[in-house]
Amino acid sequence: MFNEGDLFNEIFITTETEYNSFIELSKDQNPLHTDNEFAKSKGFKGKVMHGNILNSYISYFIGECLPTKNVIIHTQDIKFKNPSYLNEKLFFDAKVTGFYKSVNAVEFKFTFKNIERVVIAKGRIQIGLLLL
Amino acid sequence: MFNEGDLFNEIFITTETEYNSFIELSKDQNPLHTDNEFAKSKGFKGKVMHGNILNSYISYFIGECLPTKNVIIHTQDIKFKNPSYLNEKLFFDAKVTGFYKSVNAVEFKFTFKNIERVVIAKGRIQIGLLLL
Repeated sequence: MFNEGDLFNEIFITTETEYNSFIELSKDQNPLHTDNEFAKSKGFKGKVMHGNILNSYISYFIGECLPTKNVIIHTQDIKFKNPSYLNEKLFFDAKVTGFYKSVNAVEFKFTFKNIERVVIAKGRIQIGLLLL
Repeated sequence: MFNEGDLFNEIFITTETEYNSFIELSKDQNPLHTDNEFAKSKGFKGKVMHGNILNSYISYFIGECLPTKNVIIHTQDIKFKNPSYLNEKLFFDAKVTGFYKSVNAVEFKFTFKNIERVVIAKGRIQIGLLLL
């Protein structure tokens, strides 16, 4: 079902809808994420999208985009390399870096890049396959 | 501002509100998270809350609960150890495990436990302090 080297890709855009949903969910209204002037005073182009919006896209990728729905996330790590901004198109790429059939585990490496192919975030995910 | 060993704690409850917001945000409707019968057939007590809901609570912790708002997340990792269910009260504990003043970085270890003190998830966060 999985093979080392398998590639997946998705496109995500953090519009006002996702941005507002995330604030409603998390209640994180830190000024870096909500105040353009504050973010600019810290050297950013404008308010920075919460990094954990990307983790919700990881949830979608694992839950909805794999060849099986019988999955559960075991571990996840993410490194935020560059800011992402409102309405930016993000190109998500993931690669199977390990399939451990005897323990029903699959490992992925992933990156999110913006339209200039700058890496916004990268990391790893390990999932378990839920047997029948 | 930070000292190694500093402790923080918060309580989070994933009610229908957070659960529905997360699904609206992520569009992850995997049956493990949305279908009680499916989740039970896989050995769970009922539908399992998305692990990445916890990552939104991490966003709140870093953005809103620290002694300064001048912060940005650099890296995050999380290991999901046990399922969490709707309306379960989660006890979040975090500890400063490193404060690197010369590079303005702070490291935390955290755990989420349920009311029986079972570890639901644990991990690490590294943040940067945004200087004026």
